[in-house]
Amino acid sequence: MADKRTIRIGLLGFGVVGQGVWKNIEKNRQALEYRLGAVLDITQVVVKNLNRERGVQIPGEIYSDDPARVVDNPEIDIVCELMGGTGAALELTRRALSQGKIVVTANKALICEHGEELFKIAHENGGHYFYEASVAGGIPIIKTIREALVANRFSMIFGILNGTSNYILTRMEREGLSFDATLGDARELGYVEADEALDLDGVDAAHKAVILAFLAHGKWVKLNEIICEGIREITGDDIRIAGELGYKIKLLAVIARDFKANQLSVRLHPALISKSEVIAGVDEVYNGVSVTGDVVGTTVLIGRGAGQDATSSSVISDIADAVFMLQGAPKAAISEEDEAVYARLADGLELTAPEDLEGRYYLRIHVQDQEGVLAALTDLLTKHHISFATVNQKELSDGTARIMLTTHQSRESNIRAAKEALAGLNIVLSPPVSFRIFEPEV
Amino acid sequence: MADKRTIRIGLLGFGVVGQGVWKNIEKNRQALEYRLGAVLDITQVVVKNLNRERGVQIPGEIYSDDPARVVDNPEIDIVCELMGGTGAALELTRRALSQGKIVVTANKALICEHGEELFKIAHENGGHYFYEASVAGGIPIIKTIREALVANRFSMIFGILNGTSNYILTRMEREGLSFDATLGDARELGYVEADEALDLDGVDAAHKAVILAFLAHGKWVKLNEIICEGIREITGDDIRIAGELGYKIKLLAVIARDFKANQLSVRLHPALISKSEVIAGVDEVYNGVSVTGDVVGTTVLIGRGAGQDATSSSVISDIADAVFMLQGAPKAAISEEDEAVYARLADGLELTAPEDLEGRYYLRIHVQDQEGVLAALTDLLTKHHISFATVNQKELSDGTARIMLTTHQSRESNIRAAKEALAGLNIVLSPPVSFRIFEPEV
Repeated sequence: MADKRTIRIGLLGFGVVGQGVWKNIEKNRQALEYRLGAVLDITQVVVKNLNRERGVQIPGEIYSDDPARVVDNPEIDIVCELMGGTGAALELTRRALSQGKIVVTANKALICEHGEELFKIAHENGGHYFYEASVAGGIPIIKTIREALVANRFSMIFGILNGTSNYILTRMEREGLSFDATLGDARELGYVEADEALDLDGVDAAHKAVILAFLAHGKWVKLNEIICEGIREITGDDIRIAGELGYKIKLLAVIARDFKANQLSVRLHPALISKSEVIAGVDEVYNGVSVTGDVVGTTVLIGRGAGQDATSSSVISDIADAVFMLQGAPKAAISEEDEAVYARLADGLELTAPEDLEGRYYLRIHVQDQEGVLAALTDLLTKHHISFATVNQKELSDGTARIMLTTHQSRESNIRAAKEALAGLNIVLSPPVSFRIFEPEV
Repeated sequence: MADKRTIRIGLLGFGVVGQGVWKNIEKNRQALEYRLGAVLDITQVVVKNLNRERGVQIPGEIYSDDPARVVDNPEIDIVCELMGGTGAALELTRRALSQGKIVVTANKALICEHGEELFKIAHENGGHYFYEASVAGGIPIIKTIREALVANRFSMIFGILNGTSNYILTRMEREGLSFDATLGDARELGYVEADEALDLDGVDAAHKAVILAFLAHGKWVKLNEIICEGIREITGDDIRIAGELGYKIKLLAVIARDFKANQLSVRLHPALISKSEVIAGVDEVYNGVSVTGDVVGTTVLIGRGAGQDATSSSVISDIADAVFMLQGAPKAAISEEDEAVYARLADGLELTAPEDLEGRYYLRIHVQDQEGVLAALTDLLTKHHISFATVNQKELSDGTARIMLTTHQSRESNIRAAKEALAGLNIVLSPPVSFRIFEPEV
């Protein structure tokens, strides 16, 4: 990979997602170019209104309001349609695909309504249409169904595909708020689309359900053929009663196939779902999808379903796949076997010595059940710079006791030394046992 | 895709996973070949002991104990190493990769101990080494980190990577059983590897952690450099106290990178983890991995981490990727844009009419709070073939009441008709509201 090919990308639209794609390619450019063995060049950015204020600054010469500079430009390798809507986006996607271009999109409404035509144009003209970002934001559900689970046929796919409605339901549940009160907050936070029906009446999630149904089963379903009901009717009482019965109320997309009867059901509606289901635990703005395949069983994916960064992660993933397609390169070239590439990624990276770890710990100490024991333990731990947060003691029938405590932030080396010292005390009857308390800092 | 290329596959090993690959390719052969645009031919199956009884019957002429028929056979396109272990498997993998072959493996011990050498051999000789099935069985964690999240750098990856120990911990927690008692059951169910240290001392999960650390960070870590502790020390008391403090005890793999200090920590040990973490809810034999990327945020994948079918789903996914590599075809040829392919997949598939759906329902009815109301409602519902399972009534201050009930299995058409009829009753004050109860039949 001495001479990296430059891949020329044109963005149609430079709103939230477009700016995210720009920003995140810049942010991880080095790692990305190592991984892809190519240089990513955003060569053209086309917007509707050149005068609109945007957060990300880009060079003036690549900036225009002329879509032809992307769509009809033979130098552009990948067209990213990030305008949204089904007007100009449809016309420009048609034009790009009919010229055999690769189009990457996050536009679920467009695929849902015109996917059948657009995939056909792509197929007939040698173009390709990538759409990971159109469903469930940063969750790689398209790639998972299409590639990772290629061995499977899918009896059931269901999940939460709209973050805004999930946020509203979560707050209604947790705080006992009414739908209207929560909606007000969601609006203030900018979570609700300008066209509120998309979020509140289930239309956005239904678009995504239609896409997943096509992907998994090869059948295009029309929105007006399926149940599409939103969350406006849900009251605090409903959520409370459902909770008492062991359910949560979630806005669910359901794509169920009965292979014997050769029947497909696609629908989008609020549903009571048992709290024991993993998907019931997907709260706030998160999305989650459960996929049941006849070989793999049930696999669940949970992650951020929307937002600038999560969505652009998926757009960039599609760009990466397109890069491999353009290079005619084997995809495994995402180069775990390319030692040189990985050596650069790991440049100077050092393995932390176990004794340098820090965290909280749980300690179990078997002791003689006599006065002064806890004081002696405390004293020893303090000398090792360990203080504890909770302590439990259990008397055993043989005149001994088990002391179980959790520590504040401590160093592994101190814990090890303290355990050794504890084991040497007369009152300690067997080597103490410790477990770490894991708290992901996210 | 009129003339499909035949892809010749050789299996090294025909134990649990090998038989699963055979069985599941046969099971979904039609869908697979449509999706891949290729014919999959398992041309050779090599075993150590020809006389051993096996559940799956295969033609005698492809069956041998001579690995050269796979490894040194120019007709074989893809070598599947499903023997396990680090003895003959190492030698045969070296031989295949050094001849530029594609090798698909489920062998985590081999990659963990010899991956650095094997990827190098592959790279230098034009071979390719695929290993999705080596980590977390049917969960596509390799593809997700390598491809779907290619835009990201990974500050934290953690999760449950050994199903057997998770099964033991789950039963200890739920049933208050001791470690030894649960282990006995796990052995009887055949969940524990012949070499018990792999499951109980964390070695199997540590192998997988090492692979994920390399994949995400490009650095090979040695098993003896990292913390690797199993579950043998955990007692029922530990689990109980942890529970009271809001934690579960899980055997966790942790791969944490500090980008500022350029430090990497890889470890495998039991840990107390807050019940509010999604991973804490991954129970029984399931695996779960949480991946935090600097662009996408946190994504969690949960699924079957072991077993014949789940593991073979991942092996077949790697075979599919290898097929595209061999065809030099763009990977998007997994053919959502190939109308002809999908038309065949959806052949005769019918969309279920919404009114034909069946399930349980939740109904909320606003009524006059007077005697005989519940009887009237029951009467009407019965006439529509709807019976109810639970009923809640809430008196409101204005002399009205809300009745909330859940039904037994009902037909959507009956629910619709009943709602309409209910709305026509004098005692019903506004159109009733219903939600479906979703119970995935898995």
